[in-house]
Order: sequence, then C-alpha cells, then structure tokens
Amino acid sequence: MGLTPDLLMADMGARAGAAARLVAAAPTAVKAAAVQAMAAAIRANAADILAANARDMAAADGLSPAMQDRLLLTPARVEGIADAVAQVAALPDPVGETIREWRQPNGLQFRRVRVPLGVIGIIFESRPNVTADAGVLCLMAGNACILRGGSEAAESNRALHRCLAAGLAAAGLPADAIQLVPTTDRAMVGAMLGAAGLIDVIIPRGGKSLVARVQAEARVPVLAHLDGNNHVYVDGAANPEMARAVVLNAKLRRTGVCGAMETLLIDRAYPQTPALLAALLDAGCECRAEAALLPLDARLKPAVPEDWDTEYLDAICAVAQVDGVEGAIAHIEAHGSHHTDAIVSADEAVAQRFLAAVDSAILLWNASTQFADGGEFGFGAEIGIATGRLHARGPVALEGLTSYKTVVTGSGQVRPV
Amino acid sequence: MGLTPDLLMADMGARAGAAARLVAAAPTAVKAAAVQAMAAAIRANAADILAANARDMAAADGLSPAMQDRLLLTPARVEGIADAVAQVAALPDPVGETIREWRQPNGLQFRRVRVPLGVIGIIFESRPNVTADAGVLCLMAGNACILRGGSEAAESNRALHRCLAAGLAAAGLPADAIQLVPTTDRAMVGAMLGAAGLIDVIIPRGGKSLVARVQAEARVPVLAHLDGNNHVYVDGAANPEMARAVVLNAKLRRTGVCGAMETLLIDRAYPQTPALLAALLDAGCECRAEAALLPLDARLKPAVPEDWDTEYLDAICAVAQVDGVEGAIAHIEAHGSHHTDAIVSADEAVAQRFLAAVDSAILLWNASTQFADGGEFGFGAEIGIATGRLHARGPVALEGLTSYKTVVTGSGQVRPV
Repeated sequence: MGLTPDLLMADMGARAGAAARLVAAAPTAVKAAAVQAMAAAIRANAADILAANARDMAAADGLSPAMQDRLLLTPARVEGIADAVAQVAALPDPVGETIREWRQPNGLQFRRVRVPLGVIGIIFESRPNVTADAGVLCLMAGNACILRGGSEAAESNRALHRCLAAGLAAAGLPADAIQLVPTTDRAMVGAMLGAAGLIDVIIPRGGKSLVARVQAEARVPVLAHLDGNNHVYVDGAANPEMARAVVLNAKLRRTGVCGAMETLLIDRAYPQTPALLAALLDAGCECRAEAALLPLDARLKPAVPEDWDTEYLDAICAVAQVDGVEGAIAHIEAHGSHHTDAIVSADEAVAQRFLAAVDSAILLWNASTQFADGGEFGFGAEIGIATGRLHARGPVALEGLTSYKTVVTGSGQVRPV
Repeated sequence: MGLTPDLLMADMGARAGAAARLVAAAPTAVKAAAVQAMAAAIRANAADILAANARDMAAADGLSPAMQDRLLLTPARVEGIADAVAQVAALPDPVGETIREWRQPNGLQFRRVRVPLGVIGIIFESRPNVTADAGVLCLMAGNACILRGGSEAAESNRALHRCLAAGLAAAGLPADAIQLVPTTDRAMVGAMLGAAGLIDVIIPRGGKSLVARVQAEARVPVLAHLDGNNHVYVDGAANPEMARAVVLNAKLRRTGVCGAMETLLIDRAYPQTPALLAALLDAGCECRAEAALLPLDARLKPAVPEDWDTEYLDAICAVAQVDGVEGAIAHIEAHGSHHTDAIVSADEAVAQRFLAAVDSAILLWNASTQFADGGEFGFGAEIGIATGRLHARGPVALEGLTSYKTVVTGSGQVRPV
C-alpha cells in the first residue's frame, strides 16, 4: 500500500460514493437477500472467524480483562452475530417511505420522502460484532459504509468482513458498499475525520477518548454518544415494590451499559427510603449518599461533590434526597447529561411534570432506564445512542441512518414576482 | 468591554442557556404575544430604525451596489420586516408536538415529542432583516439565540434588536433569549464557532466565504447552505408552453436566489428547442450552449466545461442536450449540487424515474425551481435552506429548529437479563 492515508481514504470514499448510489436504488428484497446471505456466510465460516479471533486474542495480552472479554468470540457469540444480522433483513425498509404530504393553495403537492444518508464512516473499538451490525444496518438503510475497527480486533474484523463481502456478491451488490479500512495505521482515523465531501457522517463507537478525539477533529458531521449520567427519581407517591424493582434493575442489570442508573434521587417524602437503600446494598451496590442519609445504614459511604457528576459504569451509585419532583428536576438540570432519566410515581400529575420539564433524550415513567436500547424501542437493532440534539436523539437505527428529500408535483406553476 | 472574545461568548452562552430553559417551557400564547409586541415595536420605532440604517449606509461607500441594496432599509422594507415578524406569531408551535407513538409487546408506550434545539447561533451578513427573522423564528421554536450580524449593518441590527428586546420584555420573557453580539470584533465569530457546549447549532447566512469559514472552523454542529447549481430538464414529452413558462421563471424571476436554474438540460427528442432558447435569449438571458446547439441561434455562446459546474446567480445559463431522462440524471449526478432540480414532462413514468433517481433536497415536476423557499413550502418563513444531509434538508423553518425526546410510559417494567 504505497498510498498516503489521505489518498487511500480519497480512493475508498470515491468508491463508496459510487456504491452508495447503487445501494440507494436497490430494492428492499435485494438488500434483504444480501443480508441473509451475510448471516449464512457468518454461520458457514464460523471456524474461520473463531480462528481469526484466536489470533487477535493471542496478541491481546496488554488489554484489560474487560477489553479482552469484549474482543473474545465464542461459537455462541458468532451465532449471536449471525442471528442479529438475519434479524436486520426482516426490518421495514425506511428508504422511499413518505414521511409527510401536504398541499399548497396554488395546487403544488409536497411529499417528503426518506432517502439514504450516503456514505457513513464508523470508527469503533474492540467489539468485532460492530463490523457486522454496522455493515448490515448501513446497507439496509441504503447507505455505503467505511468501517475502521480497532487494531486489536483486526483479524476478527477481516474475517467477518469477508462474510459481508460474500453476501454483497451473492445479491449482486457492489463490494464497495461495505469497506473495511485495510490498515490499522492510526492516521487512517484522521483521514476519515477529514474526509468532508466523501463521508456524509461519522459515527464513533467506543470509549470517551475515542469519541472526544472524533468530536475534536472531525470535519465531517458526527453522530455521537457522550455520557449517560442517568437518574431514577423515586417520588413520594411511588409504589415501593415498583420503586425497588425499577431501581435495582436500572442500576444492576448491567452496570457497564450507557442506560444504567448512576444517581438515585429519593423524595424526602418517600416513606421507605431505608428499605430501598438496603435493597441496593444487599445486592452488592456501593451507595455514596449525602450526609443526611448516612445514619440510615452503616454500609452507606459519604458522597463527595464529584459523585453527582460521575458515570460509574459499575456497581456504584450516588444517592441524594430531594424535595419532591421540583427538587429532582433541579438536581437533574444541574448534574444530568440529558441521556436517560426516569421517575417512579403513582401520581400522574407529578409524572407529567417530570416528563415535560426534564430534557433528556429518553425519559421513562415507571420503567427501568435499562430500556434505553434500540432493540427495546422496537427498532430491531441500533447503531448507537445519539446524545447530540441534531438529526437523531436516542437510539439510532435504520431511520436515523436516513435523510429526506421533498418532491413537489405541479401542473406548470411558476412563482409570481 | 474588558472581556476576551472567548470569555464574552462564555458569558453570553451561559445566559442564553438559562434563557433557553425558560423559553422552552413558555406557552405558545406567551411566545406569540412577544412576537406580536416585537412587530408593533418595529412599526413604532421605524424612524429610529431608518435613522440607524442611514448611519450604516453613510459608512457603506466601499460596498458593492448589490451589497448596499441588501443593507438599505426603506419605510416599505421596515414595514415588510414587521409584517414578516407578525406572521411568525400565527404559525403552529412545533414544541410539544407528538411526532410518533408506538407500543411494545411488554406494554411500554413510546411517544416521540418535539423539543427546542436549545441555543442557536446565527452568523449573518449585510441584510438587517435577518436580525428580526432569525430572532423570532428561534423564539417561536422555543430556542434562545445569539445573533452576530455583519459590521456594515451594526447600527441597523442594534435598532432592530432593541425592538425584539422590547417584545420579550412585554411578554415577560428573558432578555437573554435573543442576544446580539455587542461588538463587531471578528474574533467573536471564532468564539461562537468554538462554543461547543454553549451553542447547540450554528446557522451561517451569507456568501460562500462566510459559509466556508464556518464549516472549516466550527466545533459546533452547523446547518448550512452551499451551492445551488440547479437544473431544469425539459423532457421530449414536455408541453412546450409549460416548458417555456417554467424555464423562464426558474432562470429569470430572480437570478440571485439559491433556487434559480443555472443549467438547462433539453432532451434531444424535444421538438421545440430553438423556440425555447429564443425565449430565454429574448428575455435577456445569456445562454452558454454546447457546440451542437450553437447553429440554432446566433446569440448562443459556446459553453466551456466549467459552465456545467457554475452557479451564476445572474442572467446567464448553461444549456446542454441530453439523451432522455437517463441522460439528464447522469448530467445532474456529475454536475449538480443536490439543491433543487426540476423536470418538465407530460409522461408520468419518466417524471417518476427522475424524481426517484435524482437525490436533491428539493425535486419538482412541472413547476419552477424558484419555489425552493420556506414560505412557498407553507412553512410561513424560513431561516435558510439546508443543503447538508443531516437533521434538516431543504427549507428550514420552525420544525427544523427543533429536536425531539422520547417519553416511555410503563407500569413497573424492568428489563430482563
């Protein structure tokens, strides 16, 4: 590869642009056939994929156990990837959908129609399944994509990408529709971030340092996920059984996901605060509580001011008492990251006040914050959760990977001066 | 003003953020009352505004006649600004609108609701009316805004901004909801472009060099307008009278607007090409035609390759013959800017092929490209036409100035492991 990163990216981007035009026009059945063939190829080549992953794992000594676990593929995980891919083939095709129609008094008819975004760049870290998930979601939404995985997963990504290429070929779609950056040279990330005019949007999937680099350097629009400093507010009118179930699930079902609760806010009027805290502590959660709560349980640790702003992604949570829903709203306004926040209350007026006043991408009433997920929203899959305010907010799936155009039909209308 | 540009912008941004939270929660009637009071204040202070504009004009010697015309206010223009402002008060409020509702099998109910974007930065050049238009559109969509006008219009902008401030005060809304950058120091533009976390989106309104600077430097998402290299394709099956009317209007109604036709594509099978070209030439349009057309009329000038890629914004157009709708699609693919393109044809199948295959923000069938305008779309007003593919595409009005959140209502659901 004698090309510089910028020249290599210019070549990949031009080929992706040409492929995007073909994929944008591909009928749903052709895209679905390609995705089904990809799932079949992943199943048929499971041994190759596992062997490639074993080579990555052999070189992964320096990675943390958590990173190694993210990198590791097992027969069950490969089957899970194939399953997830096959499910995307069955999702409704957003391309061509009429979003809105209207008419003007001069007789012009307007129709807003969903179209693909174009060329999507995905920059991701250790999880090899992103290669497959991102590739098929972009394709089903009519886009071409350029995938840049982490160097630690290079062999696994290549093996999975070969299966995607086989699926494209089987359906007669261009190989350039799903490209994997062929080198792990970090300068390729910079080349992608600077590829304005070639890449329509960059989606980073990974840790904070990756997302921060992408947001700082990108000359291409970015759809990104930032912090999930999420709250559950237990109102004085909450059903205690429900509050206990929602809080335990929100914090502990999985502690490392972006929808996990990080701070528990309890109404000063809630009668069962000690039992709620005991349930969390009994389940093994470290609770960092404000001073007034500490006498309630000897296992509580004192919170310091930073705790209100911390995304632990661990079995730790901050706990504060607030004065009713207005206190909860004020705390979330001061410390929240506008990702996902929940209220538990049997009082509808209180709940509606919370849902109206808190401006987060996802708001839940009497349900766990761990539902912050495209699959749980009924989107079938997701390419990530967007925490920005433009284009898409919350779980991003097929619809979030589209744009629109407006088709105006007339009968010879000209615009008056 | 002893503050550096970055500190001044940090202060303005923080105050705008606080105001945005209040404006986001303001009822429609309060926002509308503020806007009506602004229109009344503009009418009541017309003499002040005209006097301020006269001071700007007195210092405008170095500006081109076109720039001076953009800067100039007359009593009729001030009344036009007040009218446009008053009309925004009557537009439907997008905030709180339910975009979509659905339910999952586990009983969770999902509702996607429109919310304001937050703080919008507008960077604009000579036209003082943008101060009023942008201010009221941002306000009606529940946003705060920071306006940075061109130094050549500084006095006019300040006079108009005083009227907006009076309207905010009359309705009890915070003055910080519509802020005008108080200095014409160009470093303030840089401070706005770098104000990530304070400004949610920047909208540049002005010439190519302004937009290019904004896109190159912004660390904040940008909604921008690029080239409008627009085409009208006259199909072999076009009604000649309609083709003539649409082409003349698309090119000549106003030549300086972004929706103007820049290249005319004529089907080789169209029988009345000489008459169509003669009509354009008779109307005073310079026609730069491909070589094969030159014998048709002595007034035709030969096109050079750059003509296919030029946005003249003048009474000039490029003319090419193409082989049917596929030839038109290929030409637009090669040279278009994906802004606005039109087909004139009586053949529905041909028209549908064009509308499906050409990927421009706005596509018209049997209507003039000069309808590329928020008012003509029925949006009541527009803050500009977005040519990017993310968030909003085409005319951006109240709806384009919003984001959304998803409200999930449950009955104690927790997510299974």
